[in-house]
Order: sequence, then structure tokens, then C-alpha cells
Amino acid sequence: MAPETSQGINEKMVEDVKSFIKDSNSKLLIKMIDDLRAADVADLVEHLNQEERLFLFDLLEPEGAGDILVEIEAPVQGSIISDLDNEAITDIIKELDSDDAADLVGDLPAERAKEIIDTLDDEVSEDIEKLLPYAEDTAGGLMGLEFVAVKADSTVQDAIDIVREKSEEVENLYHLWVIDGFGRLVGVVSLIELVLESPERKIEDLMNPEVIFVEVNRDQEEVANLVKRYDLVSIPVVDDHQRLVGRITHDDIIDVIEEEVDEDISLMAGVIHQELSEESPIKISRARLPWLIAGLFGGIFAAFVINQFEASLEKIIALTFFFPVIMAMGGNTGTQASTVAVRGLATGDIDILNIGKRLWVEMKVAFFNGIICGILLGLIVGIWLSSYGLGIVVAFSLVMIVFISGFIGAAVPLALKRLNVDPALATGPFVTTSNDIISLLIYLGFVTIFLKLVS
Amino acid sequence: MAPETSQGINEKMVEDVKSFIKDSNSKLLIKMIDDLRAADVADLVEHLNQEERLFLFDLLEPEGAGDILVEIEAPVQGSIISDLDNEAITDIIKELDSDDAADLVGDLPAERAKEIIDTLDDEVSEDIEKLLPYAEDTAGGLMGLEFVAVKADSTVQDAIDIVREKSEEVENLYHLWVIDGFGRLVGVVSLIELVLESPERKIEDLMNPEVIFVEVNRDQEEVANLVKRYDLVSIPVVDDHQRLVGRITHDDIIDVIEEEVDEDISLMAGVIHQELSEESPIKISRARLPWLIAGLFGGIFAAFVINQFEASLEKIIALTFFFPVIMAMGGNTGTQASTVAVRGLATGDIDILNIGKRLWVEMKVAFFNGIICGILLGLIVGIWLSSYGLGIVVAFSLVMIVFISGFIGAAVPLALKRLNVDPALATGPFVTTSNDIISLLIYLGFVTIFLKLVS
Repeated sequence: MAPETSQGINEKMVEDVKSFIKDSNSKLLIKMIDDLRAADVADLVEHLNQEERLFLFDLLEPEGAGDILVEIEAPVQGSIISDLDNEAITDIIKELDSDDAADLVGDLPAERAKEIIDTLDDEVSEDIEKLLPYAEDTAGGLMGLEFVAVKADSTVQDAIDIVREKSEEVENLYHLWVIDGFGRLVGVVSLIELVLESPERKIEDLMNPEVIFVEVNRDQEEVANLVKRYDLVSIPVVDDHQRLVGRITHDDIIDVIEEEVDEDISLMAGVIHQELSEESPIKISRARLPWLIAGLFGGIFAAFVINQFEASLEKIIALTFFFPVIMAMGGNTGTQASTVAVRGLATGDIDILNIGKRLWVEMKVAFFNGIICGILLGLIVGIWLSSYGLGIVVAFSLVMIVFISGFIGAAVPLALKRLNVDPALATGPFVTTSNDIISLLIYLGFVTIFLKLVS
Repeated sequence: MAPETSQGINEKMVEDVKSFIKDSNSKLLIKMIDDLRAADVADLVEHLNQEERLFLFDLLEPEGAGDILVEIEAPVQGSIISDLDNEAITDIIKELDSDDAADLVGDLPAERAKEIIDTLDDEVSEDIEKLLPYAEDTAGGLMGLEFVAVKADSTVQDAIDIVREKSEEVENLYHLWVIDGFGRLVGVVSLIELVLESPERKIEDLMNPEVIFVEVNRDQEEVANLVKRYDLVSIPVVDDHQRLVGRITHDDIIDVIEEEVDEDISLMAGVIHQELSEESPIKISRARLPWLIAGLFGGIFAAFVINQFEASLEKIIALTFFFPVIMAMGGNTGTQASTVAVRGLATGDIDILNIGKRLWVEMKVAFFNGIICGILLGLIVGIWLSSYGLGIVVAFSLVMIVFISGFIGAAVPLALKRLNVDPALATGPFVTTSNDIISLLIYLGFVTIFLKLVS
């Protein structure tokens, strides 16, 4: 018999859930939920309205509710939690992994977080209080306390006993970390070795001492880069004294990768980091309006610049026809170069060691593309305005515009990286607006000089 | 003693390698390489010139060379392989995992691939020929043949014996997959269960039959989404008859996620998918020039549009000053909406089930942002041109421009998704150029009507 696995949800399922809730048919609803995985129920929940969501959560056992809650997108999760009572939240938190529990408590208003911590068992609240101080975007903010550590001088059998004891609590256990008498990380043992080695063997004889770890305060992007670079499934976290304090698993790393990409793409798009699943128009508007208004003032500045060349424009009004193409060429070239540089820096494909070489390549590309586009536009403008002189001037301007925009596009992110500023800022509307203005200045400047020379 | 782990490379190391190579100091070079992980050596190799790269590869044992080669960026990898002789490549391929071996052979020119396959042992060449037919961006193209399968009616001890036998060949083994007498996938057993359960227990009694799998022809993006959704470390691949044929591991999934992001970002930036580490200016130019030229003709079209309104512009030349701000507002609004939609669809945060709701939210956002920006620009233009009538007309135009650009920005990716076309196309220069033209048309259209009415 082939296994029937439910993977993902569909429209029919959303309708079914809605109608079960409408009819208060708890029995069918629970049966349906039980057959689904937590991530799929979370998806269903996101398609319900608040009242339906609370009806459903009321039916769930705390453990199931917790598994589902952590899979729900932040904006929806927040609204559900704000409507659940403290008792329900406390019950859910008890069932969560320490990192998820700390994240959930950390997102609550301070008052409410305190109330809930006070009612939790000591064991759970201690874990949460251990994790809460770490900034969300550091190794400490990502790590959980569920891991298995064995002493270097213990045996394979000792290790198996510890695994047995912890197997309920620690999910996704694939490696055991080895510590010395002071709790300091000294090696790693793979679970497969516990299967294959004889029970009497000493852990220190079979462990790999070349364990890759991360310090508790390291930025999450660096943690993700280590995990990607060395193809890890989990990474141990150590404190200042090299003592093992936590574990970060591969699924958290995938979340970090996506989060970092979201941040970069938000900057590219000129959006202050917006939850993709955000449903409130006011919040979305607030994420986008600042950049639009910044762009508006940039555009007004461009208007002032053009104003300086009014005399030339009055002579040949057709010069204004080419504003869009001039700005588009500068803008597109700049965006191409800056985006490739930002992405390359983020993935590590471009690194700080070969910035000079990279810039040189980008300059050659910009020069070559400038020549091609310049000749094309020069020909068109020359024919249109029946002035080959003007055509040549426009061609020459465009070569310069493409060259300079390409250079700026590549140089700004590389320079920001050197200065330890997020290079993705270079792809945002500020640089794009400056590119617009520089392009207009070059175009209008050269044309004006030409018109003065021929008159 | 705290473990000393080398993590990443630095400028000093690059200089050292270069000087060892220059002095032909193989001994120091090998010692340095031996202390590093493959990913770090790969990074070093990327900073060498071709001659230095070949000198280094000549020193390496085939196994080490293979581990390093697969970590090297595609453009550099290709140039090294083209300069290695068939014997060296054959030796390296023997040591690679099946998926990496098939990728490497697949990238060779057909003639050379055939020569190499012919000289390989049957076992290795059969594996490669099994994998070669699958498209690179499908589950089959990602999977390796290194996995452990056990029969449902076997015992834990049988499974341990199989693990022992395969432990050399299969790296990163965390789960065993369970098959029936026809080789069909029926369940999964975690390695931890082999550690904890008694050797006589039947596998079918402890396996989880709810195993998540993927069909061999599924697109890699869907595979990645399954792995992300259910937090998997590896996923079994089955053929049309549900027979287990391969395994995809988490590190390959991270590569897929990054590749899909690169593709989307390339489209956003108007770059035909360019390797971030590409070093050839000609190739980079070829990736970027088509979009620049498309943008150029879009801009020429905009010039024709503006030309139609020459009479209005001659009346008030200052109207041309606002071209940049008008186009920037339309462009920025469109980019914001389309980027958020494209990214949301890619991560699954926006799904096909709530497109209507999403569009409605986007329309409210665009309308609100349009009002704010419209009032601002209207005031500025009104004061600048000393015509409140013109200010009101510009304000009204901008409300429409922002509303329409926002709507198009959100609607096009959602519509493309419905049509099963890559939504990321919506963020490229084509849509941006259309937005420019629509914005200019609205602005010039309204202003022209107004000027006719007041004259």
C-alpha cells in the first residue's frame, strides 16, 4: 500500500473548515485537524476570520495548539494570542520547545509576559528567562535548550542512556555534543556512531574534535552562512567561556535565510520591512509611504535641476521627450549592477577580498553597454531631431550616464559592505533617485554646452 | 581545551597560498590545505588565477579534489575542469556522491562526457546514467542514490546491519526509509529508534507510515517548499509506481532556495540569470544588455507619447519639470506592490486561495498613499506654477497614477501565478516601463484637458 500523505491545503478544505465551524460541528472539525500536519492547519487558520480562528483554537489540545501556533504567520499569530486568555497561553507554552516558548513570551506586552512567567513551572520559566535576554537576530535568539551533551570520558552506553532519557524532549536529534568537565564544547559524535560502535567504547576516542560552533552573540546572518557553508543540520552555541549553551537547527536557519532575503528585497523595493502576510492596509501603507514621499522630494529636486536648463528646453522642446529614456537607462544600469553586487555579497559569492577586481569588471561591462546603448539612442535622436550633432552629443551623454550609473551601482554596495553598513541600502530609492538626477544633469549639461557652441 | 576550528578564509591565507605556489612549495601548501575544510579551500581556489588553480589541483588526492571541486562556484569550476585531463576527472568522479558526479558529467561537452563514462567502473557509470536523464530543476535532478532502505518486515538488527554496510557510502544518514516487497516507499524510521529499540523489534511496528515524499519529476521549487513547510532534513523521492528511487538532503534544498531567490532577484533587476561569481565582462554584458535595450525602446515609446502633448508643453514648459517625479511615483508604487506580491507568492505567504482579498487590501493601500502623495505634489506644483487649478489637476492625476500603478503592481504577479507563469516577470523592466508610460499619459492627459478648459 502506498502511503497517502496530505501535503498542503486546498480551497475545498478551507470551505469545509468554515462550514464545520459555522455548524459548531466540533467532531468533524477535530477529525479533520487530526489528519493534518501542524503546518497545514496553520495555513487553514490563516484563511479564517478571527472568530473562526478562536473557535478552532478552543477545541485544540495545548500540545497541538502550540505546534500549530508556531507555524502561523506573525501578524495572525499576534492577533490570536491577544484574544487567548493567560491560562490557555500558559498551557500552550508548557508544550513548546524552549526557543519557540521564549519567542512567544518575548512578543507579548511586558505586563502580560510577567503574569505568564509567574504562573509557569520553575523549569519552564527558567528556560524562558535564560533565552529572553538574547537579541532576536543573534545565535542566542535562535537557539533552543533542547540538545544532548555527553562527557568526553563517558562511554557509548552512557550516551545511549542519555539519549533515551532525553528522547521525548529533544526532537530532530542527529548529533551529540561532547563536553569536558567544565561544560566546554570539545567534540561531536554522530548518532550513527552510537548505532555502530560497541557500548564500552569511550566517547573521546570516537568523537570528532573539529566541531563547528558559533558564539552566542553572533549575528544570525553569520550563523546562517556557517550552516550553509559547511552543510550542517544543526550547530552548537557556546558562551564566552566556550561552554555549550544551546542548539540551532536547520529549520531555524532556513527561516533566517528567508528573513534576510525578505529584508534585502524590501530595501530593493523601497518598503520598510513588511510582513508579507500583513493584512492591515494601515500597516502596509505605513511601510511604504515613507519611501514614496522620499521619492517625491527626490523628484521635486530633479524638477529644480531641469528648471536650470529651461533656456535649452525652450529652444528645443523635443529635448524633454527623452527624459524618460535617459532616466530609465541610468536607473536600469544602476539597478542591475547594485542588485548583483548586493546579492553576491549576501550569499558570499562576492567577498571583501576581491572588491577591486569586481569593480574593474563592472566598469568594463558598463563601458561596453554604454557604447552600444549610446550609439543606438544617438542614431534615433539624430534622425528624429534631424541633427547629427545633437545625436552625437546624446550618444556621448548616454555612454557617460551608463558608465557612471554602472560604476555607482556596483561601488556603493561594495563600499557600504566595507563600512559594515547593510549593502542592500544601495538598491533602495535613494540611490535610484540620485541616479535619475545625475543622468539628467549629464544629458542636459552636454546638450546645453552643444547648443551654446553651435549658436 | 577548546576546539580550534577554522571558519572561513582571510587575505593572509590567500597571500600564503599564492606564495607557496609561486615557490612550488608543495609541502607547506598541502599542510595548509589539509588543515582546512573543503568549502574554505574552494573559496581560496576562487581567489587564485587559472595557473595557480591547476597547480593546486595537481597536488590533491582525488577524494579531496572532488570535495573541493563541488564547492567551487560554477564559472570557476567549469574552467578548472576544462583544463584537467580525463584521467584526473575520472578519478575525482569515482569519489563523488552520485548526484554531484551526475551534475559534473552533465556539465561536460557531450563528447567528453561519453569518453569519461566509458572509462568509469560499471557501478559508477550506471549510477550516473540513471541520474543524467532528469532535468536539473526537478526532484530527479537534485536527488542522490545514497540512501538506506529497509524492508518493512525486517528487524531493527537487520536495519543496523544495513546501516553498517552502507555507512561508508551514505553521508548524513539520519533516517531510514521503509519499503515493501516491490520497493515501494511505505514508511520512515529515525536513526534514534535504532539506538533505543530492542534489536528483535519489527521495523513495520515502529515505523511512521506518514512519510512525506516527492515524485521524481516535481519542480525543485515545490520540493523546497515541502522541505521548508515540514522542517525536513531529507526527503525521499519516488517514481510513478511509488518506488523509492533517491534522496534529497537539506543542503541541496538550501541551494535550491538560494537559486530560486537569485532567479527572482535577477528578474527584478532586469538581468538574465547571471552567475553572481561570473568574471567575464562579455558574459555579464550579455546578461544585461537585452533588458537595457528593451528599456531603451520603451523610453523611445515614451518619447512618442510625450510628443503628442507638445502643444501643452510649449504653453507651459515647466510641466516637463515634473516628468521625473510623475514617473518615479508610478514606478515606485508599482515596484513596491509587485515585489511584495512576488516574494509572498514565492515563500507561500500569499497563496492562490486569497488573491481577491489581497488585491482589495492593495487597492486600499494604493488609494490612501495616492491621496497623501497627490495632496503633497499638488501643493508644491500649485505654488511653483502659481496656479491652484493646475495644482489640483496634478494632485488628481497623482492619486490616479498611484492607484493604478499599485493595482497593476499587485495584480500582474497574481494573474501570472494563476496562469502558471513565473510571477517574478512582473517585477522586471517591461512592467516598469509600461508604468512609466501610463503615468505620463495620465499626467499629460489631465493637464491638457485642463489647459483646454481654461483657455
